[in-house]
Amino acid sequence: MTKGALALLINSRSQNWLPERWKARFEAVCGERPVVLLPNAELDPAEVHYAAVWKPVPGDLKAFPNLRAIFNLGAGVDALMADESLPDVPLVRVAVPDLTGRMTEYVVLHVLMHHRQELYLRQSQREKTWEPKYQWPASAVTVGIMGLGTLGADAADVLRRFGFRVVGWSRSPRSVDGVESFHGAGQMDAFLRATDILVSLLPLTPQTHGILNREVFAKLNRNSPLGAPVLINAGRGGLQNEDDILACLDDGTLGAASLDVFVEEPLPAASRLWSHPKVIVTPHNAADTDADAISAYVAEQIARFEAGAALENVVDRARGY
Amino acid sequence: MTKGALALLINSRSQNWLPERWKARFEAVCGERPVVLLPNAELDPAEVHYAAVWKPVPGDLKAFPNLRAIFNLGAGVDALMADESLPDVPLVRVAVPDLTGRMTEYVVLHVLMHHRQELYLRQSQREKTWEPKYQWPASAVTVGIMGLGTLGADAADVLRRFGFRVVGWSRSPRSVDGVESFHGAGQMDAFLRATDILVSLLPLTPQTHGILNREVFAKLNRNSPLGAPVLINAGRGGLQNEDDILACLDDGTLGAASLDVFVEEPLPAASRLWSHPKVIVTPHNAADTDADAISAYVAEQIARFEAGAALENVVDRARGY
Ligand SMILES: NC(=O)c1ccc[n+]([C@@H]2O[C@H](COP(=O)([O-])OP(=O)(O)OC[C@H]3O[C@@H](n4cnc5c(N)ncnc54)[C@H](OP(=O)(O)O)[C@@H]3O)[C@@H](O)[C@H]2O)c1
Ligand SMILES: NC(=O)c1ccc[n+]([C@@H]2O[C@H](COP(=O)([O-])OP(=O)(O)OC[C@H]3O[C@@H](n4cnc5c(N)ncnc54)[C@H](OP(=O)(O)O)[C@@H]3O)[C@@H](O)[C@H]2O)c1
Repeated sequence: MTKGALALLINSRSQNWLPERWKARFEAVCGERPVVLLPNAELDPAEVHYAAVWKPVPGDLKAFPNLRAIFNLGAGVDALMADESLPDVPLVRVAVPDLTGRMTEYVVLHVLMHHRQELYLRQSQREKTWEPKYQWPASAVTVGIMGLGTLGADAADVLRRFGFRVVGWSRSPRSVDGVESFHGAGQMDAFLRATDILVSLLPLTPQTHGILNREVFAKLNRNSPLGAPVLINAGRGGLQNEDDILACLDDGTLGAASLDVFVEEPLPAASRLWSHPKVIVTPHNAADTDADAISAYVAEQIARFEAGAALENVVDRARGY
Repeated sequence: MTKGALALLINSRSQNWLPERWKARFEAVCGERPVVLLPNAELDPAEVHYAAVWKPVPGDLKAFPNLRAIFNLGAGVDALMADESLPDVPLVRVAVPDLTGRMTEYVVLHVLMHHRQELYLRQSQREKTWEPKYQWPASAVTVGIMGLGTLGADAADVLRRFGFRVVGWSRSPRSVDGVESFHGAGQMDAFLRATDILVSLLPLTPQTHGILNREVFAKLNRNSPLGAPVLINAGRGGLQNEDDILACLDDGTLGAASLDVFVEEPLPAASRLWSHPKVIVTPHNAADTDADAISAYVAEQIARFEAGAALENVVDRARGY
């Protein structure tokens, strides 16, 4: 008996998403199972039991009548949730140590850049001035993490090792070692008031859309040792109001921002975010996933599933993440 | 009976070394003991039992006939060791969690900046180009720490948490959890060959003077995933040959450098290090010490000493650190 095929649907121009490379990695871990790169005119849609996807075109997945599960090749499923014709089978997101570790690198790097006055120090270097300013210890700075899930909890753990005070905010109550946790709309203000560096690791859902706006920035700690509070968004671009970010940087409501994600990607050349002196832009590469780690994870999930065990990290469609 | 005085000798123009501020902090923790800021014409030199110093002028300390111990207000005692008239009493260096934690912030920040392609990404932002390049996971990168003492061991611990491979090099054999350790001249080449990012946390002694030179850089991993190996020096400027660093950056022997310390400080405006696109300059502020933490440490050491216990972190004058 041949095994049901795994179809790969990858729509991205990024260097890290070369479809042929992904196909080779999946074949290496899928044993007997056929791995098919889509589109493929010769494929009988009925043979496809699993799909592994990155930004598929809405409607693409409904072609497969025997689909048993969809694997999203990243952590965020917001693009998929927009597909109203998405087959009603379990949708699995990626949660692997490789991805988590990369995001923690990104978060710690950007927290430290702002904490350690990198914007000021690079400016000083350009001007050839040697004028160290008072440096607060990490213990004087509170990092507030919005989204205390797989990624937020790991970043919190490493930030604590440096001595930062860490607070977190989630939808439901969460308990993370050493992190003062807040949840829901009712506790959002208390969370924001404590925060000097706001790190967004939220999924994009109807509830979180546009959540990073002036109203929220204005509630951050107005007596921050950093001068003004800082925003780091590595969740999704749709979380942020970019006009508000620019205006808040200009009027001092925010002191600086690191942005990995944008409303429109690639960030349009006309955006003032590119050239704003207080903005650090990265091209949505905070946690570029490793094809080896992800293909192994998907193969393992399929094996579990066929052996009768439950799939892990299944998206709750009602919540949207 | 009045207690022997603690004399403070602070020679620095930096904002973090305002003598009056240090005096206030020391008074807060010294109880009955008089704290005297030098120079002070009214002071009877015989009353001084302890001195806490930062870059004293050579000869300054021999004026006190009843001196029992000297506390250096930083970790590096190279400036003091140059004073041939230094009284033969125990010389204590600072080793406090506050200082160690700050240095670990610096080391991790700069390792992550190079690992995560910050020089490339800032250049891309200036050019408004959105072109993420392949990002290696931390596990593909080896950080080599020269000087596996108080500071090196703590930095190694946090770097391992990110998944970096960490190797270390010291004078005598050292065992640090999860760190492959090398020691002495005989094992230096093996240490260098393994290293992609070389972090120098050595003290400056006759043996380490000028150790960061072309011969050493040429032995670093020539097949580094970073393209070319990287240098981070937060030890002392006297460790480095700045002409070699510039020439090695220009010919590709080194890919980039983060330097906190320089042969001459402040770094002269004429130095090409200021403007080299592959050099990140910081103004010797990697681990600016907190006056509260240090004064408390000195007061505690004096109390131990007067209670008959041994002083901690006493410098071995023969070794020079
Ligand atoms: N930039 C990049 O390269 C990159 C890479 C990977 C992922 N990401 C983004 O990171 C996001 C998080 O990933 P993850 O693996 O950590 O997800 P996760 O484990 O599902 O965690 C999501 C967290 O957000 C919280 N949350 C969701 N909706 C909320 C709301 N309305 N109000 C308050 N909190 C809310 C959740 O609360 P509960 O704990 O109560 O459920 C949870 O703590 C992904 O969705 C993706 O968008 C970006
Ligand atoms: N940039 C800044 O702001 C800043 C701030 C604080 C300190 N520092 C510098 O950092 C240095 C290290 O501080 P620390 O507290 O970690 O000192 P430490 O505990 O004395 O450690 C020094 C390390 O260097 C090793 N070492 C010394 N001479 C060596 C040689 N000839 N060959 C190989 N290894 C040698 C020692 O080997 P053993 O283990 O065998 O003794 C030890 O592992 C200080 O001396 C200071 O110069 C800089």
